[in-house]
Amino acid sequence: MLNDITPQTRRDLLAMIGKVGGGMAMYQAMTALGHAAETQFTGPPNLSGARPGSTVLVLGAGLAGLLAALELTKAGYKVQVLEYQSRPGGRNYSVRGGDTITEVGGAVQKVGYAPGNYLNPGPWRIPHHHRTLLHYCKALGVELEPFIQLNHNAFVHRKDAFGGKPQRYKELATDFKGHVSELLGKALNAGALDAQVTKEDKERLLVAMREWGVLDANMKYSTSLAVSAQRGYDKAPGGGTGGAPTPSAVNGLPDVLDSHVWTQMGFYFSYVMQTTMFQPKGGMDMIGKGFFRQVGKLVRLNTKVTKIAQDDKGVTASWTDTVTGQTGESKADWMVCTLPTTILSQMEIQVSDSKKAALRALPYSAQVKIGLEMASRFWEEKDSIYGGHSFTDQAIGLVSYPNYNFFKDGPAVLLGAFASGAGGYQLAGMTPEQRIETALAQGSVFHPADYRKEFRNGASVAWSRMPWILGCCASWTEDSRAQHYQNLVSMDGRIVLAGEHASYYGCWMEGALLSSLDAIKRLHQRALAA
Amino acid sequence: MLNDITPQTRRDLLAMIGKVGGGMAMYQAMTALGHAAETQFTGPPNLSGARPGSTVLVLGAGLAGLLAALELTKAGYKVQVLEYQSRPGGRNYSVRGGDTITEVGGAVQKVGYAPGNYLNPGPWRIPHHHRTLLHYCKALGVELEPFIQLNHNAFVHRKDAFGGKPQRYKELATDFKGHVSELLGKALNAGALDAQVTKEDKERLLVAMREWGVLDANMKYSTSLAVSAQRGYDKAPGGGTGGAPTPSAVNGLPDVLDSHVWTQMGFYFSYVMQTTMFQPKGGMDMIGKGFFRQVGKLVRLNTKVTKIAQDDKGVTASWTDTVTGQTGESKADWMVCTLPTTILSQMEIQVSDSKKAALRALPYSAQVKIGLEMASRFWEEKDSIYGGHSFTDQAIGLVSYPNYNFFKDGPAVLLGAFASGAGGYQLAGMTPEQRIETALAQGSVFHPADYRKEFRNGASVAWSRMPWILGCCASWTEDSRAQHYQNLVSMDGRIVLAGEHASYYGCWMEGALLSSLDAIKRLHQRALAA
Repeated sequence: MLNDITPQTRRDLLAMIGKVGGGMAMYQAMTALGHAAETQFTGPPNLSGARPGSTVLVLGAGLAGLLAALELTKAGYKVQVLEYQSRPGGRNYSVRGGDTITEVGGAVQKVGYAPGNYLNPGPWRIPHHHRTLLHYCKALGVELEPFIQLNHNAFVHRKDAFGGKPQRYKELATDFKGHVSELLGKALNAGALDAQVTKEDKERLLVAMREWGVLDANMKYSTSLAVSAQRGYDKAPGGGTGGAPTPSAVNGLPDVLDSHVWTQMGFYFSYVMQTTMFQPKGGMDMIGKGFFRQVGKLVRLNTKVTKIAQDDKGVTASWTDTVTGQTGESKADWMVCTLPTTILSQMEIQVSDSKKAALRALPYSAQVKIGLEMASRFWEEKDSIYGGHSFTDQAIGLVSYPNYNFFKDGPAVLLGAFASGAGGYQLAGMTPEQRIETALAQGSVFHPADYRKEFRNGASVAWSRMPWILGCCASWTEDSRAQHYQNLVSMDGRIVLAGEHASYYGCWMEGALLSSLDAIKRLHQRALAA
Repeated sequence: MLNDITPQTRRDLLAMIGKVGGGMAMYQAMTALGHAAETQFTGPPNLSGARPGSTVLVLGAGLAGLLAALELTKAGYKVQVLEYQSRPGGRNYSVRGGDTITEVGGAVQKVGYAPGNYLNPGPWRIPHHHRTLLHYCKALGVELEPFIQLNHNAFVHRKDAFGGKPQRYKELATDFKGHVSELLGKALNAGALDAQVTKEDKERLLVAMREWGVLDANMKYSTSLAVSAQRGYDKAPGGGTGGAPTPSAVNGLPDVLDSHVWTQMGFYFSYVMQTTMFQPKGGMDMIGKGFFRQVGKLVRLNTKVTKIAQDDKGVTASWTDTVTGQTGESKADWMVCTLPTTILSQMEIQVSDSKKAALRALPYSAQVKIGLEMASRFWEEKDSIYGGHSFTDQAIGLVSYPNYNFFKDGPAVLLGAFASGAGGYQLAGMTPEQRIETALAQGSVFHPADYRKEFRNGASVAWSRMPWILGCCASWTEDSRAQHYQNLVSMDGRIVLAGEHASYYGCWMEGALLSSLDAIKRLHQRALAA
């Protein structure tokens, strides 16, 4: 019977396996055949059976450390958290008016944003499939609102395209798929792909190209009202006697290729960037504050850890109070260490050589974010841009528009730079004042009439210059993963590391949380076995 | 000098024109070359100089009528509005618990939604470029929130694809562009398009196909972690020791073509469907209510117009009060008539034969919307779908997920059908109970385990059966436009028509408003000249 079946589709194959192999085979086949599982999160950890009086020392009150403190406490462990900074949250951080930003090198910024405005210098958007983070946001009462990621009406700018004049994403992307469709249609009609696709699929592909590319009757991509119904009009439709629209002129293929718009088109297709995304109402640090409401009494702030030791009885962290100068030691049975490797690799820490090598092998990226407060939301009123990003190949990388207080009067903070790679190092090397000036100069390309005129004040966070982390987030390569990742995350005596750097979701809060859950589960197992 | 220049790009050409022709030529050239103008809205109308005591009768208290009443009153006219229904807003309408829906044919529905829940049976989303509507929302204090349009994680379903099993949009769309890229890459590498593209553009296109399509080193679209970083993983990335992800398997070209996913991909590219979109907080009818707060005292509700007459002195509308049975006549110098042509074409109205022909020539579409209240937001919790649409080729057309109260516990109303074309007629022909049953049966394809189990109650609006309009919105064709549109919108003696049907933005609130603005400007000019 089985031999009689030619599976036309994966679904047929699944149905066939379902008949033959029963439920479990079906599930495994579904998995193997690509029904994507969206998360490794399986709910809060079950840490039952903790020994009464067992103690855990958590280093770092970022999200990984706070989650560990929360769940270990719930499980019955006695937890203390040591945190270098005067606030919880780590990179889960929002900058507001009145804040001070002090950099390695001594530069100090006093932030002048109006009340209610903020910059999220670290994480700023939450994918719909980051189930761990979404779970804890709900559990902690952190309200979320949509983060507009893809905005068809924002700009794309490249210095070498369109004479340096930004174009609307919708125009370039429509033109790109139009030209691609026309070319594939031509190749199909010329028989160039007859060896690759069946006659039936060829016909279906031609229909697809005509419809998706909005090609004309001759399978050409050309100026028309139908195309304008995607890329926008020269004169938009209206009402009454003069209501008829006129089409916008399409760009030729060479101009569209100049724009590299496929880079943005691909970006919006990234699984971690896909709609729907969220942000906490009132600033990203609402998450760290939510955890802190639960476990704040366990956290010793302003406490710089100077040395980490362990023996077969327990762990010891030596520290200095950065406010009083007091020194001390904290001891516990176990340790969850969430300090970044940039700090750990420079500290005396009693772990295996392979873990030390892993700590040294992991560089951090050097992003820079700049928040510019403008007197009004001219990008909304004049450019019809509500949230989303205008991309550029200048050092600033992009301008991103705020996703809260849409349509409101009064000042608003836009993200004037999210620089990475060479751009990040370049901006980090400047004084805060030079960064603002650069952001204004480069961002003006999108809004030349208003950008400088409406500017009120700005603040920047150059992650490589933040004294408590000296970088933005861990930069694993395929090679360094292969050599060091398991050594980094493995439990070493009584110490386990956690944080985004100890995950495959590097640079995401979800990675920090998943890493922490995995770490405390292993710690708990070890503690039960000890 | 001019002859020396070979414009490489449209931008160069513009710069050249700017040098030669000055500002105005530059502006005209920019327009002619396709820098899309997004709206015909140029701000509230300037209707200065109205004669003291001039009167205007407005028929219909939908958005077109309410806007006319607002602006004409501001200009100094004395306005009265007659409205058939017991509420203002017309199709700007939200259905809530406690409401009654009465259909032609006698079917009556009592709506049972929980407090705070609603269905927007008419307009439900506002494009960022509908500047007229956005302007008046702000002026009237109507708060807006994002409407999630594109949701990569929602489903696409076709009865004849994947054995009838819905697939995630992100998987199909990633696969579609992957296969298209591979095929175009093959054609390019085979030299099949050498006559169409330059050698330089061919190289750039190959780069674009590899990057945009996420092709492998051999320019093939195949299962990989890189592809999974767009279409989703078999096992998602995680933290700690087991953090490594595994890729999901890509679909073959024939399966992807079965899905017709390019239809959805094109839909999301529609100018009127592009991000960012909005909805009023609390229901679409907040807009009609906003207008009504300003001009409500001018509106006579429950007033069925039975006859429209005019002479060289003024206009007269005969009416019957639908509550008391009282009959009467309202007179004025001028009339703005916003009644739908479905009603007007059946009424005695003193206008030219060409306008009567236009009124008769305009059929209305017959959409049906069904709002299903579910006990919980299982689509969020279990499927990670927050807003957006799951599309199907069944009669219901789609299931759309609510864009308010994300993450909240308790009942929520999802849109269980937005049927048009044959599906709309089919559902309109059913009893309300049959419609709900059909919506549950068809929508279950997306959420088989939960859909019926979580269902609490439902309500439907079949527009062709709404006695006050007998249709959803005007269906112009290219031919009927050419023959009748100008006759419909032209001022006829003392009467001018307005509404979405009198615009090139049919079926959109923006069309109703732009039409109304154009109508009252012309009325005002006529009144000044009289």
